[in-house]
Amino acid sequence: MSLKTPKGTRDYGPAEAVLRQRLLDRVIQVFRRHGAATLDTPVFELRSVLTGKYGDDSKLIYDLKDQGGEPLALRYDLTVPFARYLAMNNVRQMKRYHIAKVYRRDNPQVTHGRYREFYQCDFDIAGTYDPMLPDAECIKVVAEILTELDVGDFTVKLNHRRLLDGVFEVCGVPKDKFRTVCSSVDKLDKMPWDTVRREMIEEKGLDERTVDQIGCYVSECGGIELLDRLSSDGQLNAIEGAMRALADIRLLLQYCAIFKVSERISFDLSLARGLDYYTGVIFEAVLKDTPDEVGSVAGGGRYDDLVGMFNPKRTKVPCVGVSIGIERLFSIQEKRTMVGKSTRTNETEVFVVSAHRGLHLRRLEILNQLWSEGIKAEHSYKQNPKLLAQLQHCEKRQIPLAIIVGEGELARGMVKVREVASRQEEYISLDTMIEEIRKKLTTLNVPE
Amino acid sequence: MSLKTPKGTRDYGPAEAVLRQRLLDRVIQVFRRHGAATLDTPVFELRSVLTGKYGDDSKLIYDLKDQGGEPLALRYDLTVPFARYLAMNNVRQMKRYHIAKVYRRDNPQVTHGRYREFYQCDFDIAGTYDPMLPDAECIKVVAEILTELDVGDFTVKLNHRRLLDGVFEVCGVPKDKFRTVCSSVDKLDKMPWDTVRREMIEEKGLDERTVDQIGCYVSECGGIELLDRLSSDGQLNAIEGAMRALADIRLLLQYCAIFKVSERISFDLSLARGLDYYTGVIFEAVLKDTPDEVGSVAGGGRYDDLVGMFNPKRTKVPCVGVSIGIERLFSIQEKRTMVGKSTRTNETEVFVVSAHRGLHLRRLEILNQLWSEGIKAEHSYKQNPKLLAQLQHCEKRQIPLAIIVGEGELARGMVKVREVASRQEEYISLDTMIEEIRKKLTTLNVPE
Repeated sequence: MSLKTPKGTRDYGPAEAVLRQRLLDRVIQVFRRHGAATLDTPVFELRSVLTGKYGDDSKLIYDLKDQGGEPLALRYDLTVPFARYLAMNNVRQMKRYHIAKVYRRDNPQVTHGRYREFYQCDFDIAGTYDPMLPDAECIKVVAEILTELDVGDFTVKLNHRRLLDGVFEVCGVPKDKFRTVCSSVDKLDKMPWDTVRREMIEEKGLDERTVDQIGCYVSECGGIELLDRLSSDGQLNAIEGAMRALADIRLLLQYCAIFKVSERISFDLSLARGLDYYTGVIFEAVLKDTPDEVGSVAGGGRYDDLVGMFNPKRTKVPCVGVSIGIERLFSIQEKRTMVGKSTRTNETEVFVVSAHRGLHLRRLEILNQLWSEGIKAEHSYKQNPKLLAQLQHCEKRQIPLAIIVGEGELARGMVKVREVASRQEEYISLDTMIEEIRKKLTTLNVPE
Repeated sequence: MSLKTPKGTRDYGPAEAVLRQRLLDRVIQVFRRHGAATLDTPVFELRSVLTGKYGDDSKLIYDLKDQGGEPLALRYDLTVPFARYLAMNNVRQMKRYHIAKVYRRDNPQVTHGRYREFYQCDFDIAGTYDPMLPDAECIKVVAEILTELDVGDFTVKLNHRRLLDGVFEVCGVPKDKFRTVCSSVDKLDKMPWDTVRREMIEEKGLDERTVDQIGCYVSECGGIELLDRLSSDGQLNAIEGAMRALADIRLLLQYCAIFKVSERISFDLSLARGLDYYTGVIFEAVLKDTPDEVGSVAGGGRYDDLVGMFNPKRTKVPCVGVSIGIERLFSIQEKRTMVGKSTRTNETEVFVVSAHRGLHLRRLEILNQLWSEGIKAEHSYKQNPKLLAQLQHCEKRQIPLAIIVGEGELARGMVKVREVASRQEEYISLDTMIEEIRKKLTTLNVPE
């Protein structure tokens, strides 16, 4: 029998789990600062819920075996379950975050922090609102998280699906090929233009002239000046959707300026995003000081039609959201902080030590007293452990205090308390033990 | 397309998610008080890891579809993944908690808080220690959690697999039928003796005399007096394993008395526990004041051989642990507290309000200032929302403060602050806005 976790998955041992929780807590703090509530959905959905939402990526969905009953599949992201929840409960307005694992049968490079099972941290705003106000807040949320996690300099690439559609139309792509050409453009962050060009011509059947014209557009990247240039592009001007998209982006850039994140933004026509469901603004955050292979660490966009797909009446609930790829951020921090023996994995405040043989029942009494007062306490699970071994255990585990129980002291109603780091010891009365311990924990500044 | 969650699963909406998180936080607090570190493992395991661990219940395991690659299955509990982790990493000693969802293709009664996807909260102690010291702490942990969650009176039933084996031997059950007879005994909490008796005779092929003798033993339930009686039982006396089991239970009861949980304990020979892997003490907590259908809310026991099953050298790592059925506890609390509109699901401290048209850019500036100071703030995503609608939103969402932005006040460098509950308003200077808001939040006692 092979002793391993499934391909593309990993365990998080205590030190990694502690570090990851700290990372997640900071992400949650940002989500909550922006007023989001949380939601939890099942790890699997009816297969039909996931069907037709992910384009080419559908082949990466994990199906469950047919063991009788409903066809099921593991969730591929948290966005589709969110949309299903909104439609099912007829919710028209919601700001929610969801932190949970998603599943993709990819061939990920685990060395670069990419897995088949990985956490996503999603923040989404659903509701019929005025243009770009929720969209700007999503970008602000990404910027706050990446700034606070201190992962170095980053750029948020920005584009618009309707603008891309306009570009495709101008270049002469037939309408029914918009989505598939969009998938090709999406590969530009991983492949050179020549490869993508060949794919468009050979696999997708486009004209060379069309493809080269697309190539001109998608190499554009900039800010307001690019926006101005595109707004006065004679051909794009004729396409209403593209003009509205440019107006959206102009407004978004204005809001981003007020939110003091302009210098992070890059309006980038090569950004396409893989998934089918986007309908408006799309964005993706990439780290600048990190090797390319880390790729994007956050991405999202507007998907105004997804909820309607679940709704028998097709009631539209416009949504915009962002997903933080916490696993890659964790992988960067893990390498940086050298996860290891120095990370404290327990919160024990007091270790109850036997000074000599025959004291385990007294130890249990003292432990019980500490627990009932809410003090975090442990002891050795040996009846007669060696004194030195117990003290070494305290040092190794960075437990701040030891209560040392000895026959002589007990006869006088006392125990010895040792500050583990300084090795200072003093006698305290059993009667005032709890208060004394509390005082010492405060002095030693042990977080509760 | 059917718009539902898969059979036996549920969403947790914001109010339920908040309540469940509170419940989990209290459970975690107890686990940490006892010094446990946490661990996270993948939601699926290699199929072979789960094979041969669950006896009859194996048929309830969710398999993943064969899509090429390794045969995988969703975890059935958190114990087997823990044992796999210990063996794989050659860990000989560990106290860990793990809170995560597990999956069982059962036909659960969702009205009673039983699901196919449900959270387990596990606490386990692995290591070679002196008898019953870790076991007693597991029982203490269960008692603390059930006491602190305030779910009413409860009993912890206690038994020992080696004692049951002794009973079976005394009654004349062939050794190779011990486990299957054990499964029959396990059904006694759901079926009357007559039905179980018939199953043993007709399906398991035991003598009537054997079965009736088993019936006598498994109807026994008590405390020290029962222990004394069994210890002097002439037939059991001849079986070394049974005698050692009785000595274990005697020691455990002594430790439980020191931990002040004796009055909760019932030594109950009908307790068998379904799973194959237990090798020693077993226990199960049941609520007294709740309808029977809730069943057990916690269960566990000693499994000394499980880690060795994963280990090529069969290195033994003795373990004992407990699993809290948080979903059932949640279901009880949910009914009791009437989850609903009164549960606050966001933590927003300040809502920034436009007093009239044309102020959305100023609102964004103020919001950005609040966020950058770590204050939890929101606004309407409409450019020109109605004043009344904004104030009503604050009241409905229980947001404590509103900053009301108006042209006249802004010209004087001021904004109005409203305490939402009391509707008291006052003007504050934009220069000191942050301090004033902080002061008010402290006065209103808004938790950070």
